[in-house]
Order: sequence, then structure tokens, then C-alpha cells
Amino acid sequence: VVIGRLGHNPDKPTVTFYGHYDVQPAAEPDWLTNPFELNSVNEYLYGRGVSDNKASTGAWCAGGRLGRLPVNVAFIFEGEEENGSRGFSHAIMRNLSWFEGTQLIIISNTLWVGENVPCLTYGMRGMLSLTVQITGPERDLHSGNDGGVFAEPMVDLLRVMATLVGSGGKVQIDGFYDNVEPSLIDLAWDSLKDSEEFSLEGYKAALGVPALTAPPNKRDLLVTRWCRPSLSVVDMRPGAPVGMPGQQSEPTSTCYSVIPKAAQGKVSVRFVPNQDADQLVACLRNHVEQSFAALGSSNKIDLHVEARGKWWEVWQGSPWLAMAEAAIHKEWGVHPLYVREGGTMPVASYLERVLCAPAIMIPMGQSSDNCHLANERIRRTNLFKGKNVIRRLLEEIAAMGGVGAGNAASCTGKAETAPDGDVDDGAVLGAATACAGLAE
Amino acid sequence: VVIGRLGHNPDKPTVTFYGHYDVQPAAEPDWLTNPFELNSVNEYLYGRGVSDNKASTGAWCAGGRLGRLPVNVAFIFEGEEENGSRGFSHAIMRNLSWFEGTQLIIISNTLWVGENVPCLTYGMRGMLSLTVQITGPERDLHSGNDGGVFAEPMVDLLRVMATLVGSGGKVQIDGFYDNVEPSLIDLAWDSLKDSEEFSLEGYKAALGVPALTAPPNKRDLLVTRWCRPSLSVVDMRPGAPVGMPGQQSEPTSTCYSVIPKAAQGKVSVRFVPNQDADQLVACLRNHVEQSFAALGSSNKIDLHVEARGKWWEVWQGSPWLAMAEAAIHKEWGVHPLYVREGGTMPVASYLERVLCAPAIMIPMGQSSDNCHLANERIRRTNLFKGKNVIRRLLEEIAAMGGVGAGNAASCTGKAETAPDGDVDDGAVLGAATACAGLAE
Repeated sequence: VVIGRLGHNPDKPTVTFYGHYDVQPAAEPDWLTNPFELNSVNEYLYGRGVSDNKASTGAWCAGGRLGRLPVNVAFIFEGEEENGSRGFSHAIMRNLSWFEGTQLIIISNTLWVGENVPCLTYGMRGMLSLTVQITGPERDLHSGNDGGVFAEPMVDLLRVMATLVGSGGKVQIDGFYDNVEPSLIDLAWDSLKDSEEFSLEGYKAALGVPALTAPPNKRDLLVTRWCRPSLSVVDMRPGAPVGMPGQQSEPTSTCYSVIPKAAQGKVSVRFVPNQDADQLVACLRNHVEQSFAALGSSNKIDLHVEARGKWWEVWQGSPWLAMAEAAIHKEWGVHPLYVREGGTMPVASYLERVLCAPAIMIPMGQSSDNCHLANERIRRTNLFKGKNVIRRLLEEIAAMGGVGAGNAASCTGKAETAPDGDVDDGAVLGAATACAGLAE
Repeated sequence: VVIGRLGHNPDKPTVTFYGHYDVQPAAEPDWLTNPFELNSVNEYLYGRGVSDNKASTGAWCAGGRLGRLPVNVAFIFEGEEENGSRGFSHAIMRNLSWFEGTQLIIISNTLWVGENVPCLTYGMRGMLSLTVQITGPERDLHSGNDGGVFAEPMVDLLRVMATLVGSGGKVQIDGFYDNVEPSLIDLAWDSLKDSEEFSLEGYKAALGVPALTAPPNKRDLLVTRWCRPSLSVVDMRPGAPVGMPGQQSEPTSTCYSVIPKAAQGKVSVRFVPNQDADQLVACLRNHVEQSFAALGSSNKIDLHVEARGKWWEVWQGSPWLAMAEAAIHKEWGVHPLYVREGGTMPVASYLERVLCAPAIMIPMGQSSDNCHLANERIRRTNLFKGKNVIRRLLEEIAAMGGVGAGNAASCTGKAETAPDGDVDDGAVLGAATACAGLAE
């Protein structure tokens, strides 16, 4: 984590920027250029990490250094975002004074919804990562010698997991769809309904699926992706997971004759305002325990929450949002589309809580940037105009003067200052961002 | 494969012996002695492979070399049994002349049912190894960005697999329990019903399970283990398996945010006389395809038979069995228990077919030998008396003279002489014995 600050003028607003400079591996064989060398082809710059998240971080630096800074700036450049933000909360907590007076956090780690129109991200889903484990006999057994006479953990597990999702992809857990805010999509829909930036057919083609389970219209598809909770079974395998009771260091490596003594399933849940993580976990626990009890099995079940990350939501009357919109409009000549994302960025809500300031997200990359994939790229125009948007936004903020806008006056930061042991901070950040850097 | 022959006297019977000298790895931390050094502690010899299958092979060699051999002997010592018997059928087919005139195949690669009474194994289950694969989107997708709008392969797979096994472990596939011979247990039960060599409580304790799904009496438990077909789900994981359409070299390594584009489940089926492998595969295929069709998913399903191994069964009127019983009785002073095994030894039925002779199995090790596990051992008494049993058996056979007993007169061997490409030979042997050397 690189932490820095430029300016301590109490008469100027203070802005904190977050970006990350680490990248995903680049083992995909489809790279056409050296992934660790910056290559310019036609309108695009190619290289691992150019869109996620080096370009935005670079644009910020370039935007900030043009002439005398009109605001105080603090910044955090992280190098572990793709690997769980390990130590991040610890580093922030030990250096809180560097961010003194922060009135706004700017993050640029999301994407446009399409190719041509700049966007402002105003909400993201929250996430829960859970492991369901079933443990049985004392050791792995032989399917020939002993198959057929006892309840096998893998069979129990798949019978329990199969009850989670029903036809049409509907999650069958009591309470799963409770407390969903129906109006989450309104702001995005106002700007997207007449736009060609997102189409049903284009989205299906990008996914590479012949059909969707979401209703076949643009609005309902966006509502499902952005505004409704979802549940994906992301893994099942034999063996006990690391860190759980009965663990082995590695899941059992099995072949056809081995009945594993334990089996684990991994579930990724995304939830939305105003759902509560603890309440959802209770619903899930209740569901899997009841499903398991119905089997009458002699095995044991265990549900473990590996990570939780809060949904993130801008206060829609926020003057910061209006300022960002104005900066984008001045630079690009068009009003940005307001968009949400289905992923989660635990860093956003975490920094809001510890720095007692709201965050805004200004995406720079296009939806076709291939973040994390082969031939990751960013359009040159986006990079250069992005730099100017940052500059313009800082000038807008400077013009506003030193009074905070939309700052959470009641936030003291003190409740969050424990550097370790708070499940909602370090542990969450660690596990929650371990997989997909762009947006969990 | 080491192939040899002693004696070509056409007036003497010819016996072929099969044993394997390779072993499983010995990575278990619980070894009390060096697993690759022979150690004698109290009544036992300890070391990796002592029971599976070096002791029996050694006993054969020792039994055969005492004085002038009363029979012609051919032998096969294999070094790839624990690793799929790769090249085995090829080696046999190229050297068939070494086994000319074989009237009996002797194998000693099974176990006693208990600790004190020698056994004769007269039947083993057959096996089918199958992979069910479901493929969906063109690439892995992000559970945050795209979760909730399309049919996920892993969810489809577990919903299909969950229909395989119902309550009490009953397999729910139409036709799965057809053509089962109800009298398979009779011979074993006659000798076991009043014996204390096998008990319900001892078996549960050995497995380390608090309860069994099989009916709670000794006979039904043995019927279920030995005489009824079973189905175990031995693996489920994301990614496409190697060697299947849409394969990747490795299954996808996933974490909580990744929805895998494909998922695979592995199933181990054991079947019994007089069930037919092809018919069972048809039942399985029909079942998974119908279950999948009921989901209305846009994904694709594929069922692949990875290996099949025939059940093995002695002709119960066989004079060879009577001779083996007599040899055991003379040496141990007790009549052996007749037992079956739930596992499969594809080598047995394979050699019967290519050498046109029946096989018998004379187990030497006790049920507590820990084959494949830490502290594998064999009782010294079993080893020395086993050697004598072999010697006595060869003498019994010599006394019988040169006329074959129970030989399949109609077998020409020619139908089986294709060294490669026969699914029931090399390919089966290869995959079928890949996992558990003692008995698949």
C-alpha cells in the first residue's frame, strides 16, 4: 500500500483517491502482445492491467499534476487488490492521519456499460461467500469394498445444494428476496432506456450463452443483474476445505474408486439494498440445515461464512455526483449514463466507514476491455479524456470551497479503528476481494 | 510386466499365476516404520506393499521352488497394477505362447473377511466409471457481474446428480436393480452365518461411521456390499475433464466469484451377476438425460464411460475350488470361509478370457492389513502358511493329472487377440485399476 498526501490547506477541500497497481496473472494463451509490455495497436493500449486498474490510476496522477493542485489530495495505491487486499485495513488504520479532513473518496475501478458513452456508477451489490461442508466417515473409503451401505457425504451435499436453486434460476431460500428496494434501477433506467449502449443480444453474445433465465427485456435483465440478489454455486469438490473443522491441507484428490470422507460446496451470494448480510446468512443456514435434516443422514453439516462485503450506494442527491456529471459532460460533450454494477467492491464501503466520507466511482474503461482476460486493453481516448475529467472534477470541487458536501457528520471513525479482528474490515476485505479485482 | 514359464511337459497340468509388485505411495504421516524397509514387529511384517501384493507374490515364488515343480507354471508379475495396468493387455497379447495350455489362473490379490479364518474369494462385483459433464457459456463468468441471469452448469449438474440417489441410499435409476441374482450370497452365507469373523459393529467401527444405510443385520449388510449394485458420487468439480469435448488441461481453479463455464461429476457404479454393463450404461444415460431435460436449461449434457470392468464369478461346481479348499484345510486345519468382494479386479476376467481358463482367488492377508494405508502389514503366519497352501495346491493339481478341469472348451482366445483398441481389454484395464490396486 502506497499512501501519500499533497497539500494541507485547511481552506481547501480534501479528496482521497483509491487505485490499485497489481494485476491478475496472464497465463491465457490468446494474448497477441506481450502482456507485461505496453503496446499500442490502433486506438487501444494493450497489456495486463491497463484497464484494471493502472490506466485509471495513471490518469489520476496525470490529472492531478497539471499545475498547482486546487484541492488537498490524499491517495492510496494498493498492490494487493487482486489478492485479497491483505493488510489493507491494517495499513489504513495505522495511517488514518494522512487522510485527515477527507470529504470525498474517488475510485475508478468499474466499467462503462457499453462502448461509447461515459458512465457514473452509483451502486454495487454486496456479497457473501459461503462454504457448506458435510463430513462423514473417518477416512476415505473404497467404492467397491464399501459402496452402497452408508450415507456418502458427497451425495448428501449435492442433495442439499440442489434445493438452493429451482427452475428459471429462482433461489428457493425463504426470505432470500426480502427487503429488496424496487426503485434501485430508476436512475439507471432513466438514462439507459433510450440508449443503445446496452442490448440484450449483445449481452448474450458477450456471455456466450444461447439463452438467459432473466426475463427477455433490457429492463428486467438489468434489474436482475444489478438490483436483485443472486446465488451461484461456484464450486463443489471432495475433501474438507482449509480452515474448517476436520480440515485437510488439500481437498482429497480422488479417482473413481474413492468415496471421499467429506465434501464441500462453495456458494457466492450477491445481495442488494436494503438487505442485511446477517439476516441472509440466517436464512441460508436455516435452509441448508433443514434440507440436510430431511435426508436423515448420519453425517454432519457445517455452514461457514468465508467473507462478506457490503453493498455500496451513492446518496442520490449528492452534490458530488452532480459535480462528477458536470466534469464528464464538459469533457465528453455528453451526459454520462448512470449505471450500477452487479459485483462488489468492499474497499468502497470500507473507506466510507473509516474515512467518514462518501465515495464516488468514475469508470474509465469500456465494457469490452477484457479485464482479467487475454488482450486486456483500454482505449487511448478514454485514458486521455479520463485524465481531463479528473482535472475538471478537482476544479469543480475546489470551486465549491472547503465545506463538506454530503459528509456523514455523525461518523467518528472511532468504531472502525480496530485494525484487526473486525469481520467487517480486514477479514472481509481479505477474502472478499481475493478473486476478481475489477469488482468483486 | 515380467512373464516367465517353468516346465513344458505336456503330461502335466499348466497353471498361470498373476501377482503385482508395484505399490501405492506412502505419504501418510502415520507410518511408524520406514514404509520402504521390511520391518518385523511382533507377529507382523510391516512395509508398503507387504500385503498388497508382495507377500502373496513372494509366497508363490517360495511355494513353487521347493523341490521339483509338480506342474508346468507360467507367471505374470506386473509393475503397473496400482497405476492402471497400462500396457498389460498389450504385453499379454504379444506373449500368449508363454501361457500355452493354461488350465488354471491363480490370483492372490484379495483379503480375508476377518482376522482368523482363511478365505476363498468366489466372486467380485463389476464396475463402471462414468463422468457427467455439463457445459454452458463460452468462458467462466463473474458471479457479481453476471450471476442470476443464466443457467449455471454447476447448478444444473448438481440438480441432475441429486436425482441419482434417494433416501436410504437407494439408487433411483429405472432398471438399476434389474437382473440381480438373489442367490449370490448363499455360498458365503453358509460359511459365514455362524462365524464370528465378520460383525456389524466391527465393520461400522472400521468404517468410522455412526450408522449404516444397509439393513441392520449381517446377512443384509453382506448382500448389499457384495451382491447388489451400488452407485457412489466420487467427485464433483468445476471445469471440463481432460479428454472430453470442450476439455481444458486442468479443471478450472475457482474461487467464490467465478461461475465455471463447465462442471463435471464422477460416478462409480458397481454391478453384479447377471447385470450387463451396456444395459446399465443405457439406464444411466437415459436417467441423466431425462433429469437434465426437465430443467429446461440451455446448457449441454454429456455422459462418458471412462472404464468398465466385468464382475468375476467362479463356477461353483469347479473342482479347482475344491482343490484349493482342500489345500487350505490341510495347511490350516480349518475349512476356509467362502467370501465375495465388493470391489472389481478386471485382471481376473480379462485373463480368463484371453487364456481360456478359469481363475481362482486365494487371499492371504487379513482384513486389518491396511492395504494402501499407513502401517500396511501382513501376519508372518499368513505368509508362511500361504506358501504351503500354494505348494499343497500345486501338488493337488499335479495329482489330478494333465486333463483340464472346468476349462472352457469353447474358448479359442482368438476373439481377444487384438492387442489394442478393445474397450473391454486394454482401455478397461487401464482406467479400471488406476485407483485401488488391491481390488477395484
